[in-house]
Amino acid sequence: MLNQHRTIRKYKTTPIKEELLSEILYSGTRASTTGNMQVYSIIATTEQEIKDELSPCHFNQPMIREAPVVLTFCADYNRFNLWCKQRKAEPGYDNFLSFVTGAIDALLVAQNVCIAAENEGLGICYLGTTIYMAEKIIDILDLPEGVIPVTTVTLGYPDENPKLTDRLPLDAVVHYEKYQDYTSEKIDELYSAKEELAENIQFVKENKLESLAQVFTDVRYKKADNVAFSNTLLSVLKRQGFMKQ
Amino acid sequence: MLNQHRTIRKYKTTPIKEELLSEILYSGTRASTTGNMQVYSIIATTEQEIKDELSPCHFNQPMIREAPVVLTFCADYNRFNLWCKQRKAEPGYDNFLSFVTGAIDALLVAQNVCIAAENEGLGICYLGTTIYMAEKIIDILDLPEGVIPVTTVTLGYPDENPKLTDRLPLDAVVHYEKYQDYTSEKIDELYSAKEELAENIQFVKENKLESLAQVFTDVRYKKADNVAFSNTLLSVLKRQGFMKQ
Repeated sequence: MLNQHRTIRKYKTTPIKEELLSEILYSGTRASTTGNMQVYSIIATTEQEIKDELSPCHFNQPMIREAPVVLTFCADYNRFNLWCKQRKAEPGYDNFLSFVTGAIDALLVAQNVCIAAENEGLGICYLGTTIYMAEKIIDILDLPEGVIPVTTVTLGYPDENPKLTDRLPLDAVVHYEKYQDYTSEKIDELYSAKEELAENIQFVKENKLESLAQVFTDVRYKKADNVAFSNTLLSVLKRQGFMKQ
Repeated sequence: MLNQHRTIRKYKTTPIKEELLSEILYSGTRASTTGNMQVYSIIATTEQEIKDELSPCHFNQPMIREAPVVLTFCADYNRFNLWCKQRKAEPGYDNFLSFVTGAIDALLVAQNVCIAAENEGLGICYLGTTIYMAEKIIDILDLPEGVIPVTTVTLGYPDENPKLTDRLPLDAVVHYEKYQDYTSEKIDELYSAKEELAENIQFVKENKLESLAQVFTDVRYKKADNVAFSNTLLSVLKRQGFMKQ
């Protein structure tokens, strides 16, 4: 099942029944979290109007408007802090470490939710845009201080059946005992199958570039964008109260 | 299966066969990653000497020395950057956004690996200490610039059968449509079952505290520690080349 995962970007209009959605989200909550603090929240959005508002935050990728459910997974210390304050406990979670802790919780939960959804015949798509546009998502979803959106998953019954996407060979990403750095020959070997895929050769041609790597650096994930999004993300961490150390 | 997850801290000495380990790690690689860049690495450590070195980085929790396999999941732009440079592409991934992107990849992969392992009858334990002690782990595992350890999982055949741990009710962590902030009555309601657990009442007593929340704020996850670890983690991000924007 895990090995058959495909990202699904086209969904049927069939809604997801409340009970099924609850079961899937419950499987999310069974994931490990730091100290069992559960410092995350999931926002499950189904109303078309709110999905339409979220859409530009995800560069208008059609999944946001078209999927019956949009799940925004957030690092969340707000609930935990409120509990602490009501119990004469002084929370010390207004710092960078706590953001990372909450993000880890949110992501392990997200992956559990995705696997549970796929086990039920649903399709999912992760959207990496969430951390780029966190500030606007915070405003649209009314996220209070202590809460930062980390990733978004669209959920629905698949209306497409894409083939399995390529992966680097296992020895590209696994190191035994300690990290073994890559020789230039090894890099050539590890990336050759990816570079020879017809669709990737086509990408390079279409963009009039010299290599597939340039599709990433010059088109898809450009330095100027990364720098701009880094700065806004760091300012979001400040705004949401995670950089007070 | 997902709903039956228990953290396993005691392992049999039975080693994990190489082929099985490879299968489990392969399932990890089938997880979604940003743009299918796979900007993560997994360090699988089985040598006792290296596990002994890692042990203090995880506050000497016995799982590190005792588990047959220790998996350190890392955000990794080193491999991707090497590839770019060999292909006349200028990588722009020396910034905070890229660290978060790599960490997201690493964590989705980690959760897939854990689920695959549990499906094979193995037990897992996540260690949150990785981000506290990233600097020492980098030295021990020879992680180059562009690589940061994000979480660690110990893996082995279970030698204990703990009961399912408690979770907050589903409506504590799920918000429909937008974030619904918590009233003080709601906080009382959501945390009451956790506070009434015999083991948690015992924790409060043992530590001579007034509330379970104080066990977190005054004993387990203290402000002074969080601030110190935040500062070292931010300096690790600089050292590993992720704060150049």
